[in-house]
Amino acid sequence: MYEFDKTDLKIVNLLLEDGRMSASEMSRRLDGISERLIRYRIERMTKEGVIQISAIVNSEALGFGIKADIWVEVESDQVLEVAKKLAALEYVTYVACGIGQNDISIQLVSRDTSEVYYFVTEVIRKIPGIRKTTTSIVPIVLKDVYQWRIPPNLAKNEEGETINS
Amino acid sequence: MYEFDKTDLKIVNLLLEDGRMSASEMSRRLDGISERLIRYRIERMTKEGVIQISAIVNSEALGFGIKADIWVEVESDQVLEVAKKLAALEYVTYVACGIGQNDISIQLVSRDTSEVYYFVTEVIRKIPGIRKTTTSIVPIVLKDVYQWRIPPNLAKNEEGETINS
Amino acid sequence: MYEFDKTDLKIVNLLLEDGRMSASEMSRRLDGISERLIRYRIERMTKEGVIQISAIVNSEALGFGIKADIWVEVESDQVLEVAKKLAALEYVTYVACGIGQNDISIQLVSRDTSEVYYFVTEVIRKIPGIRKTTTSIVPIVLKDVYQWRIPPNLAKNEEGETINS
Amino acid sequence: MYEFDKTDLKIVNLLLEDGRMSASEMSRRLDGISERLIRYRIERMTKEGVIQISAIVNSEALGFGIKADIWVEVESDQVLEVAKKLAALEYVTYVACGIGQNDISIQLVSRDTSEVYYFVTEVIRKIPGIRKTTTSIVPIVLKDVYQWRIPPNLAKNEEGETINS
Amino acid sequence: MYEFDKTDLKIVNLLLEDGRMSASEMSRRLDGISERLIRYRIERMTKEGVIQISAIVNSEALGFGIKADIWVEVESDQVLEVAKKLAALEYVTYVACGIGQNDISIQLVSRDTSEVYYFVTEVIRKIPGIRKTTTSIVPIVLKDVYQWRIPPNLAKNEEGETINS
Amino acid sequence: MYEFDKTDLKIVNLLLEDGRMSASEMSRRLDGISERLIRYRIERMTKEGVIQISAIVNSEALGFGIKADIWVEVESDQVLEVAKKLAALEYVTYVACGIGQNDISIQLVSRDTSEVYYFVTEVIRKIPGIRKTTTSIVPIVLKDVYQWRIPPNLAKNEEGETINS
Amino acid sequence: MYEFDKTDLKIVNLLLEDGRMSASEMSRRLDGISERLIRYRIERMTKEGVIQISAIVNSEALGFGIKADIWVEVESDQVLEVAKKLAALEYVTYVACGIGQNDISIQLVSRDTSEVYYFVTEVIRKIPGIRKTTTSIVPIVLKDVYQWRIPPNLAKNEEGETINS
Amino acid sequence: MYEFDKTDLKIVNLLLEDGRMSASEMSRRLDGISERLIRYRIERMTKEGVIQISAIVNSEALGFGIKADIWVEVESDQVLEVAKKLAALEYVTYVACGIGQNDISIQLVSRDTSEVYYFVTEVIRKIPGIRKTTTSIVPIVLKDVYQWRIPPNLAKNEEGETINS
Repeated sequence: MYEFDKTDLKIVNLLLEDGRMSASEMSRRLDGISERLIRYRIERMTKEGVIQISAIVNSEALGFGIKADIWVEVESDQVLEVAKKLAALEYVTYVACGIGQNDISIQLVSRDTSEVYYFVTEVIRKIPGIRKTTTSIVPIVLKDVYQWRIPPNLAKNEEGETINS
Repeated sequence: MYEFDKTDLKIVNLLLEDGRMSASEMSRRLDGISERLIRYRIERMTKEGVIQISAIVNSEALGFGIKADIWVEVESDQVLEVAKKLAALEYVTYVACGIGQNDISIQLVSRDTSEVYYFVTEVIRKIPGIRKTTTSIVPIVLKDVYQWRIPPNLAKNEEGETINS
Repeated sequence: MYEFDKTDLKIVNLLLEDGRMSASEMSRRLDGISERLIRYRIERMTKEGVIQISAIVNSEALGFGIKADIWVEVESDQVLEVAKKLAALEYVTYVACGIGQNDISIQLVSRDTSEVYYFVTEVIRKIPGIRKTTTSIVPIVLKDVYQWRIPPNLAKNEEGETINS
Repeated sequence: MYEFDKTDLKIVNLLLEDGRMSASEMSRRLDGISERLIRYRIERMTKEGVIQISAIVNSEALGFGIKADIWVEVESDQVLEVAKKLAALEYVTYVACGIGQNDISIQLVSRDTSEVYYFVTEVIRKIPGIRKTTTSIVPIVLKDVYQWRIPPNLAKNEEGETINS
Repeated sequence: MYEFDKTDLKIVNLLLEDGRMSASEMSRRLDGISERLIRYRIERMTKEGVIQISAIVNSEALGFGIKADIWVEVESDQVLEVAKKLAALEYVTYVACGIGQNDISIQLVSRDTSEVYYFVTEVIRKIPGIRKTTTSIVPIVLKDVYQWRIPPNLAKNEEGETINS
Repeated sequence: MYEFDKTDLKIVNLLLEDGRMSASEMSRRLDGISERLIRYRIERMTKEGVIQISAIVNSEALGFGIKADIWVEVESDQVLEVAKKLAALEYVTYVACGIGQNDISIQLVSRDTSEVYYFVTEVIRKIPGIRKTTTSIVPIVLKDVYQWRIPPNLAKNEEGETINS
Repeated sequence: MYEFDKTDLKIVNLLLEDGRMSASEMSRRLDGISERLIRYRIERMTKEGVIQISAIVNSEALGFGIKADIWVEVESDQVLEVAKKLAALEYVTYVACGIGQNDISIQLVSRDTSEVYYFVTEVIRKIPGIRKTTTSIVPIVLKDVYQWRIPPNLAKNEEGETINS
Repeated sequence: MYEFDKTDLKIVNLLLEDGRMSASEMSRRLDGISERLIRYRIERMTKEGVIQISAIVNSEALGFGIKADIWVEVESDQVLEVAKKLAALEYVTYVACGIGQNDISIQLVSRDTSEVYYFVTEVIRKIPGIRKTTTSIVPIVLKDVYQWRIPPNLAKNEEGETINS
C-alpha cells in the first residue's frame, strides 16, 4: 500500500482541478515544493497506480443527454461471460458484478429515452444468457466516481505520522 | 452540441491513455497534425466541456479494497436533501438519483466489509429521512465511467460528414 | 345496456376515423343508410353514453415528448383523498385506483426526464399521505384507450340477433 | 413543435366538450372569432397532429363493466413481438412498453371477473414468449387519457408570447 | 337470486349451530313457526343452493395438527391443468385460482412441519408446470369459511322489504 | 387423537353428501350397520370434535358473486388485535394468521368489484395498525375447506389396524 | 425426551466453557457432586444425544475472514439433490432447507469478497438445478448456534419438578 | 494467522469426533505422534483461538422440535441495539447482521409452530425498532456450522509447505 503524505495530497488536489497543470505552475501554487519533487511524485504515484491522469469524456456534450442504470439477471452459470459482452458495447459506460441480488449492473448513455428502450430491447436483451433487465433513468448525478477526493486524514504529516480518523 | 471530428477523436484517445502527454509527443504519434492544432483542440474541447483532464484516484491503492453499491429509500418528500448529505460524505464516491424504484443510489469505498457495515449502520442510516438501505458488495468493475471511449462513428470525417451509426 | 346493431357499428367506425365527418359524407360511404338515420343514431349513442365525440389532444405535438407511469403507495387510510389531488394536477393525464398491489396508478406527460424527476420529487411526493412512488418511462404506446374499437360480433345483425363470439 | 395560441386553446376546449360542435356555434360562443378562422385552425391543428377528433367508445355502456390492468413479463428477447400480438386482441384497449420493471402493460375490458380470468389464462398466457402476468382489477378511473386538457399557460397570448409556467 | 327472509335467517342460524337439529326442536325454539314450514324452507334453500348441510371434518382431531398455505406459480400456459391436479391430492383442502400475483393458492393439512416439507418438495413440486412455491404455516385460523354467517340485514322482513345496509 | 375406523369413514362420507340424512337411511345404504351404531358413532365423533354437522351458506346464491383474498401487513406489535377486528366484519369469511411474509390473510365476499374496493379502502384500511393490503380477486375455487374428505387409509380396518399410507 | 435436571444443567454449563475439563475439576467446582456422577451424566447425555462434545473450528483464525449467507432458488423438482451437493462443498459451513420463500440457505466462509464472488459464480451457480442465488455478506455474528445455552427453567429441580417458564 | 500443519489437522479431526478423547487414545490412533505433542498442540490451537472444545446442546433432544429462521427489518437507525436485544432472548440460538437486504437474521428453537408464532408476535415484534419480520420454518439442517471440517489442503505438509488448493 502506497505511503501517502501531505505533499502527495496537495499535488493530487491540483491535478483533480487540472490534470495538465505544469509542474512549474504547481510549484508556484505550493509554496516551498520544488518542480523536481512534484514531477517525481506525480511519476511515482502514477507508477504505483495511486492515480491515473486521463481525459474524461462528457457524454452529455456529445449529445447523449440520458443516462440509464440497468440491472441484469443472468442464467445461473453465465455471469462473467455476459458481463464481458456488455462491457464491449459502445454505449455502455459502466459494468460491475455485485454480491447480492443483481447479477450485473451497468450504466449506459443515449440520446433519448426511445434509444434507451431500443438498446435494452434489441441489443442487450438479445445477448444469450440474459434473463431479465430492470432499467432506471438517472436524471441527476450529484457526485461521480472520478470526482472522489482523497480523505485528507489519510495523508501522513511531515513527521511521517498518519493523522488518524 | 460540439461538432466532433476525427482529429478530436485521435487526440482524446491519446489523452485517455495519458492525460499529461505533451503536444509534441502527440504530434509525433499523429502524423500530419501540428502541435499548435493539438493544443488548440485540447483547449477548445476542455472549454466546451467535452472533456476534462484530471487525476483519477485509485481507491484500492490507498487501501480501500472494498467497493459497495447502496440503494437508499427515502421518506417521500426528502430525496434531494438526503442526496446532498450523502454526496458530502468522504467515503462516498458516487451519488445519483434515479427514476424507477430506488430513490438514491450511491457507491462507497472502504477497507473491509466491517467498515462497510459500520459506515452504513452508524453513518448513513442515521441521516434523518432515510428509511431503508440495500447494500451490495461490488467485487468486480469491468468498465468504469471514466474509461468510456467516444464511439468512433460519432466523429465527422475530413469532409465534415458524420459517419452514421 | 345499449342494444348495439350493425348500423351503429358502421357509424362508429367512421367516427373513429374522423369525428367531424358530416352525415352526408357518412351516408355516401354507407350505401343505403340515410343521413337522417345517421344523425339520429349518433345522437342516440351520444345520449346513452355509448360514445362521446371529442378532441383528443396529442401531448407530444405540444412538446411533451415523455410519458411516465407512476405507481403510488399511500398511507393505508387516505387512498381516495390522494387520488383526487393527483387528478387535479395539470401534467397528469390518467389516474386510476386498482385492486391489487398498487394503490393508485397515474400517467403524466412532460418535456424531458428531468422534468419527470422534479415533478415526481417536488410535486407528487410532497402530497401528504403518499408513502412511496415507482416510476416507469413509457417510450412506446402501441394502442391507446381511445383507439379501442368495438368488437364487431357485439353488434346485432339486421334481424336483431347478436352474432355470438 | 406547434406554436399554440389562446385562440387554439379556446377552440380545443370547446371540442373537448363536443367534438361535432359546428363552427358557427363555436363562433357564437367565442366572441369575435370568425367561423372561417375557427375552421382554419381546426384543420391546421388536425393536420399538424396536435388534436384528433374522434368517437371514444364507452366500454361500460356496451356491457364491459370490468377494467383490468395487466403487467406482462416476457422472455428477454421477444418484447416487441409479444406487444404487437397483445395490441391485436379485441378486448385489449391499451398496450404500452415501459422502461423499468414491467416489460409490457396492457388494459383490457370484460364483462365480469371470470371473463378476465379466462382471458388472461386461456388467451394472453398462451401467447408464446409470455413468462408471467400480474393482474389488477381497476374499479375507479378518475381521469382518463382522452380527458387531459392543455395546460392554459402553454398558449401564447395575443402578442405571441408564451405565458410562462 | 334467492329472496331471503327473516324466517330463513332464523332457520339457518339454528342449522349453523347443529345441522341435524330436528324440525320439531327448531319449531320449539322459533316460537310461532310450524315444523312444516321449517321443513319446507330447509328443502327450498337446499334445492336453490343457498345452503348445504354437511359434515365438516376437523383435520386436527385426526392428527393433522399443521395447516399450510401455499402459493404456486405456474408455467404461463398451464394454470388450470395444474390446479386440477392439486385439487386431487388427498392432503390438499383448498384450491383457488386468483387474479393478481399468485397463480394458484392452496391449503394443505399435515402431521408436522417435516411432512409439509416433504409433501411440497416431493409431491407438489414434482407436478409438471409448477415453477415456484411459497409456503406459509398457518398456526391460527380465527374464522373459517364455513363459519360465515349471513349478514342479518340481507333478510327481507315480514313485509317483504329488505332492511338496507 | 380419535381412533378412526372404517365404519366412521363410511358414515362421514354419507354425511358429507347430506348432513341431515336419517340414521335409518344410512343404515339401509351401509349394509349390516345398525341404526343404533350409526347414531352412537355420529354422536361420538361430534362430541370428540372429529366432525361438526352444520349448514354451510353459499354466498353466491345470496348475491355475493365476488370472492377476494386480502393479505394484510400490520404494525409490528398489533397482529392479534387487528386479526380479531377483521374477524368481526360481516363480509369477511376467513381470517388466518400465518408464519411467513403476510401477517394476516382474509377472504371476503361482495357483490361486485367496486364493493370490494370500497370495503378494502373505506373499512379495512381504516382499522388502526394496518399498514398495507394486497388484494386478489378469486374467480375460481376448485376445492373448498369444507369439502375435504378423510384420506381413506387413515381408517383402521375391522381388525383395528391402520392401513398405512 | 430426556429428563433434564439441575445437575445436568450445571455440568453442561461447565462443558460449554471448556469441553475437556476433567471430571475432578468439575467436581471441585460443583460442590457436593461426585466425579463418578459427573462422568455418568456426561456419558448419559452424550448417548441420549442431548449434547455432543466436539472441537469447533474457528474459520477466521485460519484466514477465512469473510462469512456469507446465500439463498438458493432451485428448479422446482430438485431441492434435495441440490442441497446435498451444496453440503459436500468444503467452504460451505451450513446448509438448511426452509419452508417459505427460499428453497435452500447456506453459509460459506472465504478469505475475501472476491473469493465469495468466484465461489458463488463459478462453483455454486454451475450446479445443475440452481436457478438463482442471493448473497449477503455477514460481518457480525452476535450469537452462534453452538453458543446456545439451555434455558435454566427447563431443568427439573432436586424434587424432580420442572421449574415452569 | 495460525500456521496449520498436518498433525494439527489429524488432531482436530479426532476432536470433531469426540471432544473429550484422551491424548493417549489419540496417540494410539495417530501412529508416531506422542501424547505430549498432542497435548501441546491442543493447548496451542485453543490458545490461538483456532479451535474451541465445547459441549453443543441438541435442542431437539430437549423437546424443541422446531427451528425457525427469522429476517428482521429494523428502523433505519437502530440495528445494533435491536440485534443485542434479540441475542439476549433464551430461545434465540443465532443472531447475525448482514450486508444486503435483511438487517438482522436470527434462528430460534421452539416446541411447535404455535410457539414460534407467539414468540414472534408477542416477544420479538414487541421490541421497539422492529418494523417487519419474515419467518421460515427450517425442517432440515443438512450441515451445521459446528460440523464444518478444515479443508485438508489448508494444512502444511511435513516440509512446512502448504498444499495448494
